[in-house]
Amino acid sequence: MAPDPNRLDPRDVVARKRDGDELTPAEMEEFVLGYATGRIPDYLAAAFLMAVYLRGLSREETSSLARAMVRSGSTLPLRGVSRPKVDKHSTGGVSDGVTLVFAPLAASLGLAVAKLSGRGLGHTGGTLDKLESIPGFRTDLGAAELERQVEKIGCAVAAQSKDLVPVDGALYALRDATATVASVPLIAASVMSKKLAVGTDLILLDVKAGSGAFMKTPRQAFDLAAACIALSEAWGRPARAAVTDMSQPLGRAIGNALDVAEAVRVLRGEEEGRLRDLSLTFAAEAVSLLTGRPRDEARAAAERALDKGDAAESFARMVAAQGGDARVVEDPWGVLPSAPIRVDVPAPFGYLAGVDAEALGRAAVGLGAGRVHKGDRVDPAVGVEFCATVGDRLGGDRPLAVVHGRDGSSSAIAAERVRAAILVSDEEPAPSPLIHGWLGESPREVTDGAVREP
Amino acid sequence: MAPDPNRLDPRDVVARKRDGDELTPAEMEEFVLGYATGRIPDYLAAAFLMAVYLRGLSREETSSLARAMVRSGSTLPLRGVSRPKVDKHSTGGVSDGVTLVFAPLAASLGLAVAKLSGRGLGHTGGTLDKLESIPGFRTDLGAAELERQVEKIGCAVAAQSKDLVPVDGALYALRDATATVASVPLIAASVMSKKLAVGTDLILLDVKAGSGAFMKTPRQAFDLAAACIALSEAWGRPARAAVTDMSQPLGRAIGNALDVAEAVRVLRGEEEGRLRDLSLTFAAEAVSLLTGRPRDEARAAAERALDKGDAAESFARMVAAQGGDARVVEDPWGVLPSAPIRVDVPAPFGYLAGVDAEALGRAAVGLGAGRVHKGDRVDPAVGVEFCATVGDRLGGDRPLAVVHGRDGSSSAIAAERVRAAILVSDEEPAPSPLIHGWLGESPREVTDGAVREP
Repeated sequence: MAPDPNRLDPRDVVARKRDGDELTPAEMEEFVLGYATGRIPDYLAAAFLMAVYLRGLSREETSSLARAMVRSGSTLPLRGVSRPKVDKHSTGGVSDGVTLVFAPLAASLGLAVAKLSGRGLGHTGGTLDKLESIPGFRTDLGAAELERQVEKIGCAVAAQSKDLVPVDGALYALRDATATVASVPLIAASVMSKKLAVGTDLILLDVKAGSGAFMKTPRQAFDLAAACIALSEAWGRPARAAVTDMSQPLGRAIGNALDVAEAVRVLRGEEEGRLRDLSLTFAAEAVSLLTGRPRDEARAAAERALDKGDAAESFARMVAAQGGDARVVEDPWGVLPSAPIRVDVPAPFGYLAGVDAEALGRAAVGLGAGRVHKGDRVDPAVGVEFCATVGDRLGGDRPLAVVHGRDGSSSAIAAERVRAAILVSDEEPAPSPLIHGWLGESPREVTDGAVREP
Repeated sequence: MAPDPNRLDPRDVVARKRDGDELTPAEMEEFVLGYATGRIPDYLAAAFLMAVYLRGLSREETSSLARAMVRSGSTLPLRGVSRPKVDKHSTGGVSDGVTLVFAPLAASLGLAVAKLSGRGLGHTGGTLDKLESIPGFRTDLGAAELERQVEKIGCAVAAQSKDLVPVDGALYALRDATATVASVPLIAASVMSKKLAVGTDLILLDVKAGSGAFMKTPRQAFDLAAACIALSEAWGRPARAAVTDMSQPLGRAIGNALDVAEAVRVLRGEEEGRLRDLSLTFAAEAVSLLTGRPRDEARAAAERALDKGDAAESFARMVAAQGGDARVVEDPWGVLPSAPIRVDVPAPFGYLAGVDAEALGRAAVGLGAGRVHKGDRVDPAVGVEFCATVGDRLGGDRPLAVVHGRDGSSSAIAAERVRAAILVSDEEPAPSPLIHGWLGESPREVTDGAVREP
């Protein structure tokens, strides 16, 4: 076929990015949709991604990229949901069960959470994998089913549909294969395109920083948060981003059934700690921004919802609506699969001064709790309970961790990995803050939640 | 297949280059030979090429790259050639017939020239295409045949074998498809790997600079020449590089048969001008460096070889040995195909102040003298004779150019393009030098010509 003289030569687009020029929205769209439709081959997209990695993208280019990605598929306007709609997204961490708590908690406070989630890859867990450890739980909800459930119950957690930002999966796989993952504008466009394609009134982002996160320092995490907030501003979509600590596991459970059991304890008001604290913070932020209630009142209401059982009831209704065994709320280990082997990892003496949270996540993956390759099966029962928090004085009877394994050999390896993943000190370390800071303007008014492009 | 833990992850190599690290020879070889054998896919190689384009390569990395490229195939040691062996390579220009003159001229002076050449692509002509306009001329010589001919006659011009640096073709095609052609270390490794794989005593490089060259400025051309000379030094191979003017066509003929006819005139001592001058310069350089004769004596000998017919006789012997009609030396247009249409392009009044030589090359390609796409057939008869030199006073009876076309319509388009490709001034412009400068150490001794790696 003869080349169409009116069509951009995509090599010229790559050459312009290579030279540090700013691409026009038309060029960005030509490139992204050309890749989505197979007209632009992998090798040219790979050269483009490396040029973007090294040259960066301006705020406008990042917005154009996100828009082109959204246009690669369909959107989910959620017009049938009458409650104020909030989306909460974490960039991924270890023992990060906030979504499991936040969604039913926000629902019990009158908000709507239609959470489209992903599977775990690498050292971080995936919300879908966790929920699927509840026998019968289905995550493949259709758009209409999802919307009805959210309108009725206030929350749903489902797998992202293949029609929503389909080019994102292809681009991510290519980035993973070409050493171009760790680019702030590319990560921001990937994260935000999937949020912007769903009609919500508020987007809350939990950008993790530390040893268990992709962004190892708060500085890097703030850069990513700023790029995400800039994107939401360009789209006129209210959004707030917190940069939060991932220098140690957020909760105690690193696994799937283990994570669900811990979330249930938090939802029933039975567990103090950082997971409860961060879940309350996001719920209070959402209620305050979407209903106008003062933040301290909103937080008190959220605490009551946990302590009085309202949040747990919302969780039970969601589990039942999605085919799961709702008795998980009353008696988690009567329902959830448990591992045959338990190995206590004894604690050394001294203060816990630091944790390689990524190493703990990898120890759990080694037990079968996560995936080494996309498509691997996950073992819902196995994982690691990490029992200490930085600053704790270790030693005595309490173990450092409990390994839940399928067999003795993999359990022993995991126990060794856990032991090697901590730093012990004779002196009490300074406590690390849970929240490094917030970014993003408070929304002035509740929008109609339509998916509008900038 | 499970990944081999002892094997480098090629993504890590790309990531290191992306971050500006210096790659080890082992990493470079792993990458290049991995690509040559298909283990490394196009998309990963494309990301690598873009990282190299933007981060550059050190002198050592460029040498590792060239070595890995040579190792992708076999070498041509030319052990059966007893004369001093010289290779001459031009980076490509318009009306650049130096090889057609140089090879038989050097042979007539007692040297050996086993020239492996390429086909024209883009706006520059290819030596093989030119020679194949001589009826019967064969360029597909086997290694043994090539060596025998060079030992007997002193020169041969043949197509590069597929076994010599096979990865170069694949890498070049990928660079062309990914906007990563214009990288000095990548060009240098591509040019020099093919020279280093052939056993010669001296490598002469003609690095073109100006409107008809890939390097538009002498500064860029010197950078490329320096990178090529650094490579030859790393391999311990004597080499000299001239940066020469390509701000206008070197000769008058832009085509295939037209170029051969012009070369024959130069070889018979019938044509003065820049093509003769540059051919003599390279021949004198080669004779002087390889035999130790003073340069002015060597130049005088080369002039005699043109003016007395020795060079023309060498050319006739080479043409005959390669199956061509040797009468081309006595009566070029009795043998060469000529075009049915001739259109004079009238000259405007004034001084010729500048020429867009690339546009002239493209005008000839438009007539059919070159290729738009690899594999296109070339029309040997068509082309452009450009009759003026920068500084000439135009006007009067002499046309600016003569278009040799296959039909009236393409000829008229070419004539219009030629007219648009010149700059005319009322004032006499300063003449441009033919040679901007030389780089490279003079070799201290004649080597045995073996292909030795650094």
